[in-house]
Amino acid sequence: MVDFYFDFTSPYAYLASERIEVVAARYGRTVRMLPTLLGVAFRQSGQRPLTDIPLKGDYSLRDITRSARHHGIPLTMPGRFPVPTVDAARGVLWLERERPEAVPAYVHAVFRAYFTRGEDISSRDVVAGLLADLGFEREAALAGIGDPAVKEGLRQRVEDSIARGVFGAPFIIVDGEPFWGNDRFEQIERWLAFGPF
Amino acid sequence: MVDFYFDFTSPYAYLASERIEVVAARYGRTVRMLPTLLGVAFRQSGQRPLTDIPLKGDYSLRDITRSARHHGIPLTMPGRFPVPTVDAARGVLWLERERPEAVPAYVHAVFRAYFTRGEDISSRDVVAGLLADLGFEREAALAGIGDPAVKEGLRQRVEDSIARGVFGAPFIIVDGEPFWGNDRFEQIERWLAFGPF
Repeated sequence: MVDFYFDFTSPYAYLASERIEVVAARYGRTVRMLPTLLGVAFRQSGQRPLTDIPLKGDYSLRDITRSARHHGIPLTMPGRFPVPTVDAARGVLWLERERPEAVPAYVHAVFRAYFTRGEDISSRDVVAGLLADLGFEREAALAGIGDPAVKEGLRQRVEDSIARGVFGAPFIIVDGEPFWGNDRFEQIERWLAFGPF
Repeated sequence: MVDFYFDFTSPYAYLASERIEVVAARYGRTVRMLPTLLGVAFRQSGQRPLTDIPLKGDYSLRDITRSARHHGIPLTMPGRFPVPTVDAARGVLWLERERPEAVPAYVHAVFRAYFTRGEDISSRDVVAGLLADLGFEREAALAGIGDPAVKEGLRQRVEDSIARGVFGAPFIIVDGEPFWGNDRFEQIERWLAFGPF
């Protein structure tokens, strides 16, 4: 099992989401897709969204689009960035209960809606629409996102992620070993192939 | 020419300093080693030293030593970290004037003194000792580090680096394209081999 923590508004997490399953499968591992809310971790660690930081922000926008080209992954920075992702994340928690095998398809659908078509994934209607595309009733999806048990499930998930040291995204844990960033795939692959180093 | 910006107290810059010349040489490029003082850029961008940040700090220490092992580069985190590097950086400026061809050997000597033997590179005496190892008179080296023109040269260098967008280390500029971090070598090598992407 490879634990893949992400926030739907993180461009580096989007890039990693398009790469992690292929790498894990190469070594017979499956990926557990675990949404979290970075805003909560950022408040604890005193961080700010990357693109808000003077000097670093300009570079980051350049690095994000260059990294997408480097990996051959389509990406257009959304006009509104970052956005709240609580409803989109609740969609994952709801699917874990209703149809867990649909989680990966949903995660990819949300990331791509935001980072290739600039859709407003902070909107509950947009999220319900993406769930409807997977064959769910729109009304059932809306009710699911608003279900108190789902909300509590996400709250717990975020708390657990912080307890595991997740302070940014993507954050990938393999056999208890933490790897932060889309730029740790070389080390992740080495770990999967040869074990601890 | 490949411009390699660094602060002597940055562990990721140390790792990159042990890799950049080989990569550049593979494509017929030479490396210009440009010390800067990250504290100045950090004040502008509101950043803090990596290891001071809650959650992120613990991970970083783990990632630094794991990355060193991954690349096969000896590294022991110094007991005192980070340290002021203004005198060590002035040593580079003095060498640029006195014996520019000795700059790379000096840069490696300072980094290795700090990151493999835990020497106090914030000490002017230690810096003068490292310059003496390269064949300079100790007294001449001490005078050189304290020379007002050298001090002004470094001040200007730091200002220039910020004007070029250098907010962290290592920061590598190839043909005007900025790359931040020890984890951008794959993209740097692609750029050197095939040009813009």
